[in-house]
Amino acid sequence: MSERARPAIDLNADLAEGFGRYALEGDIAVMPLVDSANIACGFHAGDPRTIDAAVSAAKRHGVRVGAHPGFPDLVGFGRRMMALGTHEITTDLVYQIGAVDAFCRRHGVRLRHVKPHGALGNLAWQDPSVADAVVAAVASVDPELAVLAISGSALESRARAAGLPVAREAYLDRAYRADGTLVPRAEPGAVLHDEHAIVERALELVRHGTVRAVDGTVLDVGPDTLCLHGDTDMAAPLLSAVRTALESEGVALRAFGDPAD
Amino acid sequence: MSERARPAIDLNADLAEGFGRYALEGDIAVMPLVDSANIACGFHAGDPRTIDAAVSAAKRHGVRVGAHPGFPDLVGFGRRMMALGTHEITTDLVYQIGAVDAFCRRHGVRLRHVKPHGALGNLAWQDPSVADAVVAAVASVDPELAVLAISGSALESRARAAGLPVAREAYLDRAYRADGTLVPRAEPGAVLHDEHAIVERALELVRHGTVRAVDGTVLDVGPDTLCLHGDTDMAAPLLSAVRTALESEGVALRAFGDPAD
Amino acid sequence: MSERARPAIDLNADLAEGFGRYALEGDIAVMPLVDSANIACGFHAGDPRTIDAAVSAAKRHGVRVGAHPGFPDLVGFGRRMMALGTHEITTDLVYQIGAVDAFCRRHGVRLRHVKPHGALGNLAWQDPSVADAVVAAVASVDPELAVLAISGSALESRARAAGLPVAREAYLDRAYRADGTLVPRAEPGAVLHDEHAIVERALELVRHGTVRAVDGTVLDVGPDTLCLHGDTDMAAPLLSAVRTALESEGVALRAFGDPAD
Amino acid sequence: MSERARPAIDLNADLAEGFGRYALEGDIAVMPLVDSANIACGFHAGDPRTIDAAVSAAKRHGVRVGAHPGFPDLVGFGRRMMALGTHEITTDLVYQIGAVDAFCRRHGVRLRHVKPHGALGNLAWQDPSVADAVVAAVASVDPELAVLAISGSALESRARAAGLPVAREAYLDRAYRADGTLVPRAEPGAVLHDEHAIVERALELVRHGTVRAVDGTVLDVGPDTLCLHGDTDMAAPLLSAVRTALESEGVALRAFGDPAD
Repeated sequence: MSERARPAIDLNADLAEGFGRYALEGDIAVMPLVDSANIACGFHAGDPRTIDAAVSAAKRHGVRVGAHPGFPDLVGFGRRMMALGTHEITTDLVYQIGAVDAFCRRHGVRLRHVKPHGALGNLAWQDPSVADAVVAAVASVDPELAVLAISGSALESRARAAGLPVAREAYLDRAYRADGTLVPRAEPGAVLHDEHAIVERALELVRHGTVRAVDGTVLDVGPDTLCLHGDTDMAAPLLSAVRTALESEGVALRAFGDPAD
Repeated sequence: MSERARPAIDLNADLAEGFGRYALEGDIAVMPLVDSANIACGFHAGDPRTIDAAVSAAKRHGVRVGAHPGFPDLVGFGRRMMALGTHEITTDLVYQIGAVDAFCRRHGVRLRHVKPHGALGNLAWQDPSVADAVVAAVASVDPELAVLAISGSALESRARAAGLPVAREAYLDRAYRADGTLVPRAEPGAVLHDEHAIVERALELVRHGTVRAVDGTVLDVGPDTLCLHGDTDMAAPLLSAVRTALESEGVALRAFGDPAD
Repeated sequence: MSERARPAIDLNADLAEGFGRYALEGDIAVMPLVDSANIACGFHAGDPRTIDAAVSAAKRHGVRVGAHPGFPDLVGFGRRMMALGTHEITTDLVYQIGAVDAFCRRHGVRLRHVKPHGALGNLAWQDPSVADAVVAAVASVDPELAVLAISGSALESRARAAGLPVAREAYLDRAYRADGTLVPRAEPGAVLHDEHAIVERALELVRHGTVRAVDGTVLDVGPDTLCLHGDTDMAAPLLSAVRTALESEGVALRAFGDPAD
Repeated sequence: MSERARPAIDLNADLAEGFGRYALEGDIAVMPLVDSANIACGFHAGDPRTIDAAVSAAKRHGVRVGAHPGFPDLVGFGRRMMALGTHEITTDLVYQIGAVDAFCRRHGVRLRHVKPHGALGNLAWQDPSVADAVVAAVASVDPELAVLAISGSALESRARAAGLPVAREAYLDRAYRADGTLVPRAEPGAVLHDEHAIVERALELVRHGTVRAVDGTVLDVGPDTLCLHGDTDMAAPLLSAVRTALESEGVALRAFGDPAD
């Protein structure tokens, strides 16, 4: 099998979402198991020490670094919708991206991508004006930064329209609705925990580019990267299982945008 | 008189120290009156909107932009001593410098310098280990960034030892003690308000490089830049008076490190 | 004219909305001009020093003290909608009410009422489930606390249903829509600045219990208290003008719920 | 053995020190194992939901509730010294005590005591002016509140001088220096982990009122209450072992100040 024909995928996780005295299960431990790490920037989670440690660990493991900015809502972990104006969103993101980028320079790595977190991410997927506000922040800091966006979202299309690199994302551990959006966390079954189901989903996403919605609808999402949440103690074993299954199927695991070896 | 012989000095002020709904007198209004602006980074003051507006105004007026990071103490305005470890100081500064730098990239200007604020500045002037922590942050983000340090301080010597550009700073509106340190704010007479005294001090600093301590001691401080606080409604008239007096004496006002026209 | 027949009204203002180094115009200066003061509790504005000073000033001037809790959004001044759950709202309010109440005990005055701030207030006026969350907080801390609620709002009706004392509020400086809600701040004409118009509105509210909406609709709001915003430099002269006009018409100015002299 | 002669002691722990999405091991789980709970108030840790849940759990288990206020330093968990003025300390504590007290009223229990946290506690033990600032806060909110203070500290003596109830505290899991102060956390051996040593210390403290310093000095501390830190996963098994050992020796475990059954 030639390298050209060999399928490849990126695994990403949201990491470094502790704060001060507080750590989350999984966090840095999953670094060796991902290709791209989305690092919390201090607004919904994260502080200068967690960012520093995460960028350092990413470098050590050859993992690509992205910024994972969120709403300024530490106590709500950025999961509560806030009615910010577009200028507020853009400037909040410029600030957070710049903060993480400085740690990249400190450790001699390159900031690669940006993925909005939680309620901000949900809004940016659905609302073109919020998507534009996110895109404006990314483009104004560095137009070579990629945007991670769920496949088919407003964020994907607005980022493409602005000429930014885009990585289409699919979720391994979140249930999909038939319209391609995620089942909200507050609803039952929103988060998948079953290892077998998650591995099967990963294989289907890489082989066929599709994922099943909760009603059985086959969604064609054609992902560049697969996300699994890094903030639980199940993250490491699940990511290990996914990696093993993909590699045994001959899938190359490497950061999106990276050349084949 | 040849350009070579013409004396030159830089005027700097700490700006953009509002937060959200709150503005401080003077702030952006003094931008046209300074050569270098030290912009609050969000820990002791400042938020993404104030930083954005300040960098934009600096660009418009051709003012050099510096980061003015402080302790994470918004309610205390960064004026209360905090016993942070050196790693905490370094990482807090990397974060803040990066945040402001991203706004510089957004507006197409270059971040030029870093000046620690308030209690952190005082510590960095006096304590070599704190000075080293500040220097480590600056050097790791960008070794071309200059450090603004009060003349004769530990911060000046440690920044020089690390090979960073240094701008020696003298204060126009703060009383000096005979050892070259500032009279603490809590003591009477710590802040000068008299326009005549401030203008005379500016002239003496540029002509002779000296300033008088409260006991009459003549301190040889040889400044590259003169600081006047930007957070009061007196900042604009005082800076105007200083500029007028210096220019009428033939002093060139330009950012430290900038070439003569 | 017997005292029984003499009309009476309460003037209230939202006060002590500074934070740390930051003060707002008007704030404590307007204390002698109101009968009831709504004191910011530290989430959208206010800190332990501003609360302490405000309660002390209220006591000195014989002004009734209320808590003015808001969303946990200091940088947004509590004016941005946040999608909090009802348990989050209730507990956020219990916390804030308790904090202000402790300063009342410290100064030997009684906490009298609670008025939700900004975006939280708007939600509580319109959404019965949010109103219930506010009412639950008030009732669980002290069922003798009154709720300040705009006339005809969900907050008014839910507070009455829970058996809490209610003071119906009308605004002197905010435009009304025909349905009795306020014109949002983002729209032109939302805030009234004209002294004559404000005084006339006050007189109509006391004489007839009515206020004109922007389309001319006469709203029957029957207020117990009239609010004028305390956070601008116009607050003091406007409140003075209103007091003078009301007193010259024989209106008694006293805190709602207080007995006539 | 008559009840009069039966020795009694109180076990206390610092609890509810999570924040938002973050929990600490041990926390609420240790509630059934203590007699008095010191509840974080939101400045160094804790939020309205953690406080609500902790007070509710304390009520359910018949545990006495105290406030555990700290410095306004969430990212540093209140363990970093801050140079606050005494008015700042007093008002910060009034605020925090009031916040927790409101949750006590909500759940129909009585706030019993106050214990300053971390760096603030250390300062209050050593510096009489800080101790006075703490005492002023407690006394001004409710002079029936007890102060928990390490035996022989400035806080103990200043609280007694002010007429406040005092509970003398000894630590089960912290090493003592010969002068009766604790070995700082940064030093090796500062925290005891060995179950046998901790149980032996508890027995000696109850039988003889003494504890051994690291150099062997016997300190006469005569405690009313014994503290074991609640924020690790060892807290529950260690507290269980201590309770079992004390009860098997005939020691009555009950909140300080409570009457014998």
